[in-house]
Amino acid sequence: MLLKGLGEDRIIEGLKKRSGKRHPRLVMGIGDDTSVTRQKAGLVTLATVDTLIEGTHFDPKYTPPYLLGRKALSISVSDIAAMGGQPLFFLVSLALPEKTEKRFLDELYRGINDAAGEYDVVIAGGNIARSVLTAVSTTVFGEAKEKEVVYRSGAREGDIIYVTGTPGDSALGLKVLRNHGARALKGRFRKAAWKHLDPRARIDAGRALARRGLASAMIDISDGVALDLTRICKSSGKGAIIELEDFPISDEMKKYREAAKDSSWIDLALSGGEDYELLFTSPEPDRNKIASLAKTLGLRITAIGRITDKKGLKVLGKDKRLYRLKKAGFEHF
Amino acid sequence: MLLKGLGEDRIIEGLKKRSGKRHPRLVMGIGDDTSVTRQKAGLVTLATVDTLIEGTHFDPKYTPPYLLGRKALSISVSDIAAMGGQPLFFLVSLALPEKTEKRFLDELYRGINDAAGEYDVVIAGGNIARSVLTAVSTTVFGEAKEKEVVYRSGAREGDIIYVTGTPGDSALGLKVLRNHGARALKGRFRKAAWKHLDPRARIDAGRALARRGLASAMIDISDGVALDLTRICKSSGKGAIIELEDFPISDEMKKYREAAKDSSWIDLALSGGEDYELLFTSPEPDRNKIASLAKTLGLRITAIGRITDKKGLKVLGKDKRLYRLKKAGFEHF
Repeated sequence: MLLKGLGEDRIIEGLKKRSGKRHPRLVMGIGDDTSVTRQKAGLVTLATVDTLIEGTHFDPKYTPPYLLGRKALSISVSDIAAMGGQPLFFLVSLALPEKTEKRFLDELYRGINDAAGEYDVVIAGGNIARSVLTAVSTTVFGEAKEKEVVYRSGAREGDIIYVTGTPGDSALGLKVLRNHGARALKGRFRKAAWKHLDPRARIDAGRALARRGLASAMIDISDGVALDLTRICKSSGKGAIIELEDFPISDEMKKYREAAKDSSWIDLALSGGEDYELLFTSPEPDRNKIASLAKTLGLRITAIGRITDKKGLKVLGKDKRLYRLKKAGFEHF
Repeated sequence: MLLKGLGEDRIIEGLKKRSGKRHPRLVMGIGDDTSVTRQKAGLVTLATVDTLIEGTHFDPKYTPPYLLGRKALSISVSDIAAMGGQPLFFLVSLALPEKTEKRFLDELYRGINDAAGEYDVVIAGGNIARSVLTAVSTTVFGEAKEKEVVYRSGAREGDIIYVTGTPGDSALGLKVLRNHGARALKGRFRKAAWKHLDPRARIDAGRALARRGLASAMIDISDGVALDLTRICKSSGKGAIIELEDFPISDEMKKYREAAKDSSWIDLALSGGEDYELLFTSPEPDRNKIASLAKTLGLRITAIGRITDKKGLKVLGKDKRLYRLKKAGFEHF
């Protein structure tokens, strides 16, 4: 069954029906010109938009619509996490070809709604338009106390640079998905492939770091550690040194490193995008607090380098030798 | 000069530089993971997203990028107007082909910023991605006192139905643009062509109606009077009668009516989309207040029919005879 003839309103209402969930601050969700949500004195609203476009961000050949829906929400929620905020509401903007199957939409919605349930966010609005390409755009609104918000600009000389998880897995996953298609989801590097298609936003870690005042600067890794760290450095007017010796990589990345017998794993780990892990800086004296937070969260948090006063990003490999990255990270233009 | 090699951050920062405007409630705009804006107790946030996609919503052959930028913002701002709210901030999400000229982007930005200045809204964030099609998505958030907000659902039996301006002009404009391309902007129906490419959101009218409590239900005409009125009727559990005798049309539409010698003008006026005029209902006793508001605003506001208890939409033409619309309005699916 195709979408044609269903009517826009009914298509968008499908998202509302499936979700069912309400939020005490949501006065009006899908069903009017705009969403209506109540404000609270002393809080700030965090707002962000992100888009996944067919051919640019995903290949329909190996991207199940269920996972596309999940990822579309996760990547915007991740931006809220990177500010230390609590995500609350979201809007969805869909572009779909006329020949889209109803089943595709059902699966996409199921993915969006499952992710919404896991992140505890509520749909507040949406729109839909015909296009020759499929695209899913999500706008997420969250909030935080004004003083808690963590910006990119707060890194200071001597701060330690941390990452959550094992960056580079998503890029490794993309590599095997491109080579093997959907079979990669069951192959040797299946965890990496799943990580690429179904990243998780680190809300709990972001919130905890913000509430405890432990992060001086923070960003989510969407375009690779090197490029996103450069963004922190530029905003903070600082530089950074990354030591590869300490860099956390997954078992699959280790397998890849052994098989490839070259340094390409370094470029995957530092310049690969779409991990949606958190990259943050924190003063040296708080080292133990970070370690204990990692334990509490059950999340790997690893120190990978330091903020310096000298601008630019240096990557030190074996025997502290300078490593030259092939490119900083993923850039659309 | 092409965009390739410019870098995403620099492209997005272009929007920030151009608009130098700040807002006292905007803590962080473009330049971090999310925008940060201060909340106020007692107010509600109104949020909406809308997208213009190449080939679906605009034809690059006769759509100057400057007007595309203006329209992309206007259509989302219009949704805030239709709730009776004050628009404040916006996010822009761009999809652009790699071969996009820098000049195209400059013009697009100039359009967005000029419209932002006119609507007094401030850019709070944005993102950009490569695509084979150009698409401009705007998320606008505004606010209002909770009690002032006007929904689609408040229409009551006997309420008078009003529209601002002269609906149908945008559809007439699209018709001549399709036939004559950019030459239409200087032709016989040039005002209609401009209306299609550069609609204005009716913020002042929406705000005034909301503040004075004059509108029982309201919507902006994006998909045509008939379809958008049907939305009000469905949300309110009511029906409606439109009398064509009273329907406001522009001088160019009159010219078209005379030239065409058929009833096609009625379908343009009632089923044509993208006018972004306001369609609202108001109790009969407030008739004089509406008339005086129209005078104050210098805006044509016309009674076009009544809300009834019998579901469905009836259009009465000459001698009160029933007119059958060819289609309700614009639907993507």
